Amino acid sequence: MVKRSPATLSDLELFAEIEATLYTAVVSDSLDQLGYWNQAMKENLRPLGSACRFAGWARTIAYADMYHVPEDPYGLEIEAVDSILTGEVVVISTGGSTRNAPWGELLSTAAVARGARGAVIDGLVRDVKKIDELGFPVFAAGIKPVDSKGRGLVIGYNVPVECGGVTVHPGDLVFADYDGVVVVPVAVLEETLRRATEKVSQENHSRAELMDGASLRDVYRKYGVL
Amino acid sequence: MVKRSPATLSDLELFAEIEATLYTAVVSDSLDQLGYWNQAMKENLRPLGSACRFAGWARTIAYADMYHVPEDPYGLEIEAVDSILTGEVVVISTGGSTRNAPWGELLSTAAVARGARGAVIDGLVRDVKKIDELGFPVFAAGIKPVDSKGRGLVIGYNVPVECGGVTVHPGDLVFADYDGVVVVPVAVLEETLRRATEKVSQENHSRAELMDGASLRDVYRKYGVL
Amino acid sequence: MVKRSPATLSDLELFAEIEATLYTAVVSDSLDQLGYWNQAMKENLRPLGSACRFAGWARTIAYADMYHVPEDPYGLEIEAVDSILTGEVVVISTGGSTRNAPWGELLSTAAVARGARGAVIDGLVRDVKKIDELGFPVFAAGIKPVDSKGRGLVIGYNVPVECGGVTVHPGDLVFADYDGVVVVPVAVLEETLRRATEKVSQENHSRAELMDGASLRDVYRKYGVL
Amino acid sequence: MVKRSPATLSDLELFAEIEATLYTAVVSDSLDQLGYWNQAMKENLRPLGSACRFAGWARTIAYADMYHVPEDPYGLEIEAVDSILTGEVVVISTGGSTRNAPWGELLSTAAVARGARGAVIDGLVRDVKKIDELGFPVFAAGIKPVDSKGRGLVIGYNVPVECGGVTVHPGDLVFADYDGVVVVPVAVLEETLRRATEKVSQENHSRAELMDGASLRDVYRKYGVL
Amino acid sequence: MVKRSPATLSDLELFAEIEATLYTAVVSDSLDQLGYWNQAMKENLRPLGSACRFAGWARTIAYADMYHVPEDPYGLEIEAVDSILTGEVVVISTGGSTRNAPWGELLSTAAVARGARGAVIDGLVRDVKKIDELGFPVFAAGIKPVDSKGRGLVIGYNVPVECGGVTVHPGDLVFADYDGVVVVPVAVLEETLRRATEKVSQENHSRAELMDGASLRDVYRKYGVL
Amino acid sequence: MVKRSPATLSDLELFAEIEATLYTAVVSDSLDQLGYWNQAMKENLRPLGSACRFAGWARTIAYADMYHVPEDPYGLEIEAVDSILTGEVVVISTGGSTRNAPWGELLSTAAVARGARGAVIDGLVRDVKKIDELGFPVFAAGIKPVDSKGRGLVIGYNVPVECGGVTVHPGDLVFADYDGVVVVPVAVLEETLRRATEKVSQENHSRAELMDGASLRDVYRKYGVL
Repeated sequence: MVKRSPATLSDLELFAEIEATLYTAVVSDSLDQLGYWNQAMKENLRPLGSACRFAGWARTIAYADMYHVPEDPYGLEIEAVDSILTGEVVVISTGGSTRNAPWGELLSTAAVARGARGAVIDGLVRDVKKIDELGFPVFAAGIKPVDSKGRGLVIGYNVPVECGGVTVHPGDLVFADYDGVVVVPVAVLEETLRRATEKVSQENHSRAELMDGASLRDVYRKYGVL
Repeated sequence: MVKRSPATLSDLELFAEIEATLYTAVVSDSLDQLGYWNQAMKENLRPLGSACRFAGWARTIAYADMYHVPEDPYGLEIEAVDSILTGEVVVISTGGSTRNAPWGELLSTAAVARGARGAVIDGLVRDVKKIDELGFPVFAAGIKPVDSKGRGLVIGYNVPVECGGVTVHPGDLVFADYDGVVVVPVAVLEETLRRATEKVSQENHSRAELMDGASLRDVYRKYGVL
Repeated sequence: MVKRSPATLSDLELFAEIEATLYTAVVSDSLDQLGYWNQAMKENLRPLGSACRFAGWARTIAYADMYHVPEDPYGLEIEAVDSILTGEVVVISTGGSTRNAPWGELLSTAAVARGARGAVIDGLVRDVKKIDELGFPVFAAGIKPVDSKGRGLVIGYNVPVECGGVTVHPGDLVFADYDGVVVVPVAVLEETLRRATEKVSQENHSRAELMDGASLRDVYRKYGVL
Repeated sequence: MVKRSPATLSDLELFAEIEATLYTAVVSDSLDQLGYWNQAMKENLRPLGSACRFAGWARTIAYADMYHVPEDPYGLEIEAVDSILTGEVVVISTGGSTRNAPWGELLSTAAVARGARGAVIDGLVRDVKKIDELGFPVFAAGIKPVDSKGRGLVIGYNVPVECGGVTVHPGDLVFADYDGVVVVPVAVLEETLRRATEKVSQENHSRAELMDGASLRDVYRKYGVL
Repeated sequence: MVKRSPATLSDLELFAEIEATLYTAVVSDSLDQLGYWNQAMKENLRPLGSACRFAGWARTIAYADMYHVPEDPYGLEIEAVDSILTGEVVVISTGGSTRNAPWGELLSTAAVARGARGAVIDGLVRDVKKIDELGFPVFAAGIKPVDSKGRGLVIGYNVPVECGGVTVHPGDLVFADYDGVVVVPVAVLEETLRRATEKVSQENHSRAELMDGASLRDVYRKYGVL
Repeated sequence: MVKRSPATLSDLELFAEIEATLYTAVVSDSLDQLGYWNQAMKENLRPLGSACRFAGWARTIAYADMYHVPEDPYGLEIEAVDSILTGEVVVISTGGSTRNAPWGELLSTAAVARGARGAVIDGLVRDVKKIDELGFPVFAAGIKPVDSKGRGLVIGYNVPVECGGVTVHPGDLVFADYDGVVVVPVAVLEETLRRATEKVSQENHSRAELMDGASLRDVYRKYGVL
């Protein structure tokens, strides 16, 4: 299990800048260029409320399906949530389970109180209207009004997980907008952001010329992006 | 086939109170406590329009897929819909068919005219915009603009069915909100509602203290709910 | 490969009239009557933005999944998009791929500039918020922020394809509204539209009488439609 | 419902000749040439025992899933099986159900006693070892030791059904071998068999030359078959 | 976690008698009669070698998918296998995982040495040819040559699990033959076996009369079984 | 597209030695140790006949689904098969298509005549009995008696493909036995085989001691393998 520390002030500025100037599509393209082809989560993870732009360090939690109520059904879950740090995005791996809804309003409230920027879960959630009222952005694979007790159990946190088909390590950058969720490994963070920023500017030119009736062929020849 | 009678005035008051004060998540938790672990419908059933809170007695209709147009394609379907009673929620079982869309605007209009409170279907619907204008709340597994004639046939109504993965008996309480649909068997209705009401109050305390920064561990120790 | 010509003025008037007076459900029913039972696309194709009513001639493009970056990754794609004609609906077949998102903002911009009326794709798209700002209506099977380079390749256009479970020939009429997408082969276009127009009027009568409390049996006996 | 009569002596001779000289692959190719592209059942239908070559007229039976035990659980099923005629292949449509196993040893015994040549079911079967001892050839989608009572119900027989993704009409020719099951509509039976017989002879030539090291290009140029 | 003791001599005699005289289909029918409708495992669990008849007490092991190599990757797995007792059937729950193959030759060898009668796993296995040479009967959902290290982890044993869609408690009777796997809860074991024995005798009569050409209707009327 | 040359004599000796002394499970474990976690194909690819042990260099062919008969339906397919070289394993990528069966007896005959050692396809095949008589080993995802003409088209060969969930480059070592198919990149071939050979010897010790009743814990402590 990895030790983590809260996001610094400059981390928070970085997150704000990413949210303001980039989008997941250009970040994904930049990761492609660097040979990281599998960093965008599956299309079945969708934003559940009106808010859906956030960036932060990955805080991972892994659930397994369970078919009885163990002695301490919430033990590790409570520990995992209570240790969330400012600037983190909660990344919950369930193996795509559709049996339980491990994330809901109370955990969202606890996460907000600890400074989390959002949550991504490859399983189900509940209390969706109340989470939306909190203003806490959540991506999930679906909605079902059932508790995790007797259905699932936290089996680890701050460990590498798979969520939405992407391997996520604690501390990776997680960035989400309406198009989906991308995960940027720390080793290529700086280079990825540099390339993404550059591509945003090229696309602005392409878009303008296409709107003016230029052919795709000419525009692609000129700017090299599609 | 079970004989049914229309909901009484006190039934309608009960439905209104459930809709006003409870939500499906607490009802599901209460059913769990009573040993009823499989009463929440699958996450692929979603509300189709802007209205999605309703409670009522289950009126079941079962469809089977069909690959030709029989002599009387709508026979039992017409009988089933014409016999809907005030205070009922139409629960349509299709085995999760994606071939036809047995529910649409005209059947919704007929259901509204008979006093139905909503409909739940584990298959497809059509005329979705018009159903929404009617203000008739419908949960469904998807939308497709095709008729049931030559694609599906009513093979029974007022019989036990499976809808969204839950066994539904005629007369069960069906309760739906944005989080999904739960089914409460009559035998445990009173006890389920009593426990749900109690849990709502406990959650209000938990939420407030979590927002004030209390740890999940302390809040869980104090109120025993997550 | 089929040669195509741009829609004429009367084509455009036809599209406008279809959009204003018909809906996909009655068109599908009319196709059923004529023995065309499989003309409505699968329910997993949904409108992505606020606009979702359009009709036009089918312009088909076929993609295959790809696992490396070929020498000319965008070659045929650029050719296909640059040859889109006024009055066409872009119909993109991907075999239901969930690996890449071949359609996005720049291709939408190019399509708008060439007079396309909408796009239908049985795979994924990206840049969804920007496509919505363009006002270009798109039906798709999902959203993911990844490029097609190294993931998919155009292998043909203006050829028969399968999209959303329906065989689409270049030049078929494609009509989409909130209920989904139907494809009308040119050979039965006139007769389909005639019957659809007639059915709209019958349904208006049925609806009114049902709202007044008439039984479904009586209404069906009188108008013969459900 | 279609009236049927038992296979004649010349029918039985036809079935024997098809089984002795043709195979499903050439029959499928001949159907393709005649424009019938969807006559081979899905790959999940596999032979369950050692015997798997049979041809005969389709006798259809349709099951629907059921979630309670009705008053007469076996009524129509008994009627359907008791009316099986000599020379028929029992084609059972279940919508691909994996809940029950409607076909087993006793029904196989009854079918054998009535002169059936085999059975094809797009659902599950049980008593597989005993059916194999009977020498009755069966294609199915799987094996599970559960009864149909309370799980499924016959809702029709001698009606058009879909089995393994193919529409089957009563009286179509059903032909099965180790490669799978093809369905030949009566209207094209003669022409299909003629072309299939011809193709068998062409393939014998291709095979011999390929084995001798001829290039595929030369062989294809010469015989026009692959 | 439940404490278990090895099967007694009379347990072993019981298992031998069940294997010799009963089959899973009659046991499943008897469970149906007693209201236990969901005791037969899914059809995707199939015997992997030539041996596939065994009965014994359930010894449960639960795996979760894992995406890194933890400090002690085999810890609980070794403990679980080393504690297997004479007369047990190893029941392995993986949530239907297709990532790893937790069961193989070495674990089979250890299970044989401890007196296990067979194994059932709702996931994958490897070393299938060598397991077959051992004569150890295994039902599994598939075959793949990968280790569990870094792919899955034992998260519990001797606890209630779900395997093949059936809830299995430690100590339930597990009975498998070529038709599949049924699980008999201890509470109804005696009554289930009594009814199953009776049904075997009734079916013998039905079978003989059907072979002699009796109608299904007459046979069903006389013996009441199908 | 990569240029390839036929396997040398020492290549053929290497293949024979791998087939005689190794198995896919130990090769997969060795690849895991070297950080190559995704080299074993999916469990749905199974051997179709009695022969299923082969090793050779990967010869890749990529198919795409097709919904019409193009001018030259077999063009690139013929070219791809005619260029197969001695010592190659044909690796066919179809994206898991269940529409057509691109591989059959004639292509197998051509492949045998050119010295291919086996074929692996993540789609369907036909002529299975005849391929088995040829003694040509094939792994496939299923069997269906349909031609590829009008259903699929070769869109490339000697290019990187995905087959059975594994990325395969032309020239990778493909090794198959009853447990499945593993792919060894050339860069780690030597080291993988060295480690696999070593592990085979360790497992022989573990097996013997387990059979003698040693605990799994002791054996794992001693040999470090499971």
